[in-house]
Amino acid sequence: MTAPIDIIAIGNALVDVIAEAPRAFLDERGIAHGSMRLISAAEAETLYAAMPAGEAISGGSAANTVTGMAALGARPAFVGRVADDQLGQIFRHDIRAAGVEYATPPSTEGNPTGRCLIVVTPDGERTMNTYLGACQELSEADLDADAVAAAQILYLEGYLWDPPAPRAAMQKAIAVARAQGRKVAFTLSDVFCVEGHRDDFKMLLEQHVDLVFGNEHEVCSLYQTSDINAAMAELARHACTTVVTRSSAGAVVIANGQHHAVPGEHVARVVDSTGAGDMFAGGFMAGLIEGRSLTDCARIGCITAAEVISHYGARPKADLKALVKAKLG
Amino acid sequence: MTAPIDIIAIGNALVDVIAEAPRAFLDERGIAHGSMRLISAAEAETLYAAMPAGEAISGGSAANTVTGMAALGARPAFVGRVADDQLGQIFRHDIRAAGVEYATPPSTEGNPTGRCLIVVTPDGERTMNTYLGACQELSEADLDADAVAAAQILYLEGYLWDPPAPRAAMQKAIAVARAQGRKVAFTLSDVFCVEGHRDDFKMLLEQHVDLVFGNEHEVCSLYQTSDINAAMAELARHACTTVVTRSSAGAVVIANGQHHAVPGEHVARVVDSTGAGDMFAGGFMAGLIEGRSLTDCARIGCITAAEVISHYGARPKADLKALVKAKLG
Repeated sequence: MTAPIDIIAIGNALVDVIAEAPRAFLDERGIAHGSMRLISAAEAETLYAAMPAGEAISGGSAANTVTGMAALGARPAFVGRVADDQLGQIFRHDIRAAGVEYATPPSTEGNPTGRCLIVVTPDGERTMNTYLGACQELSEADLDADAVAAAQILYLEGYLWDPPAPRAAMQKAIAVARAQGRKVAFTLSDVFCVEGHRDDFKMLLEQHVDLVFGNEHEVCSLYQTSDINAAMAELARHACTTVVTRSSAGAVVIANGQHHAVPGEHVARVVDSTGAGDMFAGGFMAGLIEGRSLTDCARIGCITAAEVISHYGARPKADLKALVKAKLG
Repeated sequence: MTAPIDIIAIGNALVDVIAEAPRAFLDERGIAHGSMRLISAAEAETLYAAMPAGEAISGGSAANTVTGMAALGARPAFVGRVADDQLGQIFRHDIRAAGVEYATPPSTEGNPTGRCLIVVTPDGERTMNTYLGACQELSEADLDADAVAAAQILYLEGYLWDPPAPRAAMQKAIAVARAQGRKVAFTLSDVFCVEGHRDDFKMLLEQHVDLVFGNEHEVCSLYQTSDINAAMAELARHACTTVVTRSSAGAVVIANGQHHAVPGEHVARVVDSTGAGDMFAGGFMAGLIEGRSLTDCARIGCITAAEVISHYGARPKADLKALVKAKLG
């Protein structure tokens, strides 16, 4: 590594394949509109065959987050598995081109590079069908423990808690980071992730993690309540800082038993909401690395999330640094 | 084949990899701004490594043309070679999803699927760097002579005249089509193609082809003149119908010694000029298949070209059929 790394993110290394289709395309296949689900290789093949023509673009939640952080001047590294194939080459090229250190060796056997088949319906909503492929083959051996020990923040993607080998890698990374007194951050990722791993996620939040990101649906699911205030009251009981994102209403930072609400950023037109949560987390953590206050971090998160939803695609297009400077100084 | 095929196109089966970069990116590498050039596998690797993050989307000139024709209600087939790899899967998926019959078997050894590395500079211009890869491995054996004999139009891409095996396949296809009295159409593709194959292209135009598409630069290059009127006077001497596209000024159809000028379609904002010529040819030939007059064919070409340059990407997004119906009836 040439420069010291500020943040190491562990997540799914996915290429998004995005196509527009009518709502009936989902309904006929019994796919819940607006959902994210994991699919098998066979399902991915069948679904792709039925999808309209599309475009391929690098994705992955934590990978999106760190590309945003690099654009804000942080020095991130990403850990995640692709295969030694063309989609893997695209993922590797794009994340490095965005200024993120990426050294995880590709799988040379096993599953192909993971992909997220995204159906965009005329209402602008995205329905995500993820075939994890090589992502699941990430293991402890892919971790550079010295790098984790040296980075200010370790950031973990909830989506990757599902397959066992990457989960073990994340558990090891948590142990290494905490032993060095580093900050561990975690995103709840999705309601289905919370439902599938509620006890694990609670345990992480209560014992192993310093900073958690989630939207209202995810934190409500965590405490099995429909009352966001009840969920936030639960979160306030723990030492962990929690940031609850609230779409256009901004975000609430819960730290030391206190709630700090930050207003949302005005967006003239929401073109594509994908990546809003990823980019919020990126903006927030870039602020942390600069030593900003928690509310300023949340403001940066809102600014960067607003940028990414104002255009097609989940990675930033504008000069984020200039944008934040213009708004916050 | 389930339905009779109207048109068979032979061309490069390419996936475009598109990224935005400053003008200096080209200048530093000695790449002529706005040009199209062929590059080797090694050059493609070096250039891709240096390019910013981008997106992958199916392309290829004649392939774009036939997707436009399918959108207009024609029944096209495409012949072109990809490899048995992920980019090849993307190409095959997208062209079939657009309603084009595509049965060319992928190469299982040899070069990977061809790609066009496209650098978009801030002025909106595209500079194309094409690695032909598997495209060059197309051969006579890939032709379904019965299908060529049965289709109303055979359409050939000038770009593919360069590598010898596909050229031989195109020559065979011309012989089959002409023996059945079918119409043979050809696009000059690019000034560099004309420069490299001027004598061949002239011979095609004079003896083997019924319809030629070219822009002003290409037809001027064909006759080594800077005077478009001189070039058009030369074209008028041949039995072949020629359509000269003139960007925003529309097109001129030269047939039976006569010139018929057709005005350009108004475009509120040119977002991305890629695919204008491809889509003009598609609109024109879709009109021919419907039995329209040559000037109406050219009008349809202008309408469909205008649609494709009003958005990002070289394949149509609007309902072309409805667009043409609204303008021409």
